[in-house]
Amino acid sequence: MSHSLLTIDGLQYSNWSRGIFEQMREGGVDAVHATLVYHENCRETLLRFGEWQRRFEQHSDLIVPVREASDIELARESGRVGVFFGAQNCSPIEDDIDLVGILRRLGLLIMQLTYNNQSLLACGCYEAEDSGITRFGRQVIREMNRVGMVIDMSHSAEHSTLEAIEISERPVIISHANPYSFHPAKRNKSDDVLRAVAQSGGLLGFSVYPFHLKHGSACTLEDFCAMVADTAELMGVDHIGLGTDLCQAQPETVLTWMRNGRWSKATDYGEGSAAAAGWPEPLSWFSDNRHFPNIARGLRQKGFSELDVEKIMGLNWLHQLTEGTRPQPGTVI
Amino acid sequence: MSHSLLTIDGLQYSNWSRGIFEQMREGGVDAVHATLVYHENCRETLLRFGEWQRRFEQHSDLIVPVREASDIELARESGRVGVFFGAQNCSPIEDDIDLVGILRRLGLLIMQLTYNNQSLLACGCYEAEDSGITRFGRQVIREMNRVGMVIDMSHSAEHSTLEAIEISERPVIISHANPYSFHPAKRNKSDDVLRAVAQSGGLLGFSVYPFHLKHGSACTLEDFCAMVADTAELMGVDHIGLGTDLCQAQPETVLTWMRNGRWSKATDYGEGSAAAAGWPEPLSWFSDNRHFPNIARGLRQKGFSELDVEKIMGLNWLHQLTEGTRPQPGTVI
Repeated sequence: MSHSLLTIDGLQYSNWSRGIFEQMREGGVDAVHATLVYHENCRETLLRFGEWQRRFEQHSDLIVPVREASDIELARESGRVGVFFGAQNCSPIEDDIDLVGILRRLGLLIMQLTYNNQSLLACGCYEAEDSGITRFGRQVIREMNRVGMVIDMSHSAEHSTLEAIEISERPVIISHANPYSFHPAKRNKSDDVLRAVAQSGGLLGFSVYPFHLKHGSACTLEDFCAMVADTAELMGVDHIGLGTDLCQAQPETVLTWMRNGRWSKATDYGEGSAAAAGWPEPLSWFSDNRHFPNIARGLRQKGFSELDVEKIMGLNWLHQLTEGTRPQPGTVI
Repeated sequence: MSHSLLTIDGLQYSNWSRGIFEQMREGGVDAVHATLVYHENCRETLLRFGEWQRRFEQHSDLIVPVREASDIELARESGRVGVFFGAQNCSPIEDDIDLVGILRRLGLLIMQLTYNNQSLLACGCYEAEDSGITRFGRQVIREMNRVGMVIDMSHSAEHSTLEAIEISERPVIISHANPYSFHPAKRNKSDDVLRAVAQSGGLLGFSVYPFHLKHGSACTLEDFCAMVADTAELMGVDHIGLGTDLCQAQPETVLTWMRNGRWSKATDYGEGSAAAAGWPEPLSWFSDNRHFPNIARGLRQKGFSELDVEKIMGLNWLHQLTEGTRPQPGTVI
């Protein structure tokens, strides 16, 4: 495999270990958006930062924190994986707008406004009714714009997503999902949303999580790359990247927690079902971090130019982070 | 007054306002150790950081955050007051050693191990028995050493202070107190402690809080400067500075809260008494931030060389922060 192709994965939530970081290097991954939290409140989010401080110190030969986009180049030059953080939900800021800036300073570069359910900011993609961005949500969007925290609507509902894009003065992203036209999952996105994301200057990160794919675990590399090509036509090749949603080595208890947090006594099966409650079977051509070169190969075979492959594999994410995480002038973080 | 004398105040807890920041500039203050919290837990400490973010943005022409010692020079060059943060107690870290690094990253450069009472780390100066540094305390001292957070024993008891100095591999400071030999207050420090602080490479910041002074509010500038001269002989002129303990414009409710936090239903009067429960009358020659030049003048009159005056007014604090807040190699904050 070649390490010359900048590779950035736009979402993972793995059971982090030295072995996984080594696989990332083998697969040529230069930077990864690591989910820091799902349901954690502010105090619990600090626990997660604490765990990462330890990882950065224990595995300093393999990983390095990304506090600003330029750190990705430094990571690459030193042959390490740059790790940047995002929250899959707005739970870390609780009801306090000041926490946006404080968490940004600690290194939270990306935040979803909601995770499947209604949040204090917006509506999730599993709710029956979507009343859009809340009063608090409007304020938080402006504050995220100000401090340079990227707005991610991956798990949000349609109307909320379109409204967030309208309110935000900076690009809005979908870090990990696929087009609904490719596979009609609740988590996948309509053409309207994808067009609006592109018009905002944002990005869609393609997921390889089988529940987001046509034919599920049997989806072929060719199917996947055909979807990428169709989306490139819809959104423009500058607005697409990867967001694998890889959850390596996570026990099923974590999946259950991701789906249920502490909000339900009944069991919610998310994208699965009672009959298929566990992790789906991984793809044959993308089962761990060593397989990123397969995607690059598939894109080339599909006919993408080398520059377009570079954009999709990493350059577009680098651009998003460079532009999206710069605090506005006069902002103290 | 001259702005050419680097002036650093080693402790204030004022009811911060534009007027106070303006007085600081009038008094030639280049940097101030602002108490961020007394009794606040971790989550509440973030509220205080949030308030300061707003202040830095609203008064960006007057104040600027000091995240590392070199920011003090930048503040000075731009004619603004650099603000660096300390906690008067270890309450912000709760029972979690990872919070030391996280709070350091947010800008907490100094932390006291205890405030008057027993804490999870050490014993305060008002307890009847002092059992020294706790098991958790030993770990936190090493972690503070590692991340570059200065250990401050201003409100700690004698044995705990001496033990902290023994355990710490980096200098230990007393940011605001005076020698017990000058005035026998519980908060003032024995010659043993002062010698040990100096031997550790640390610093004593002289307080102008009347309860720490001979003759209280009637203490003269000459009395004060004689104390400074005696202490310079005991500790060496490289180990003394200012720590005024100025609490400008604070209502008496805040004084009561400082003394009682939420730990007592009975009223503790701290250094006051039931008959004199309120703030003491300020000194005539140091009632607000405009009066720093009086101290410099007094020191010159007492016979200190210009270099020694510079050391006491600010250079020694700058040195402490420069040396004391540098994280150890391999430390990720």
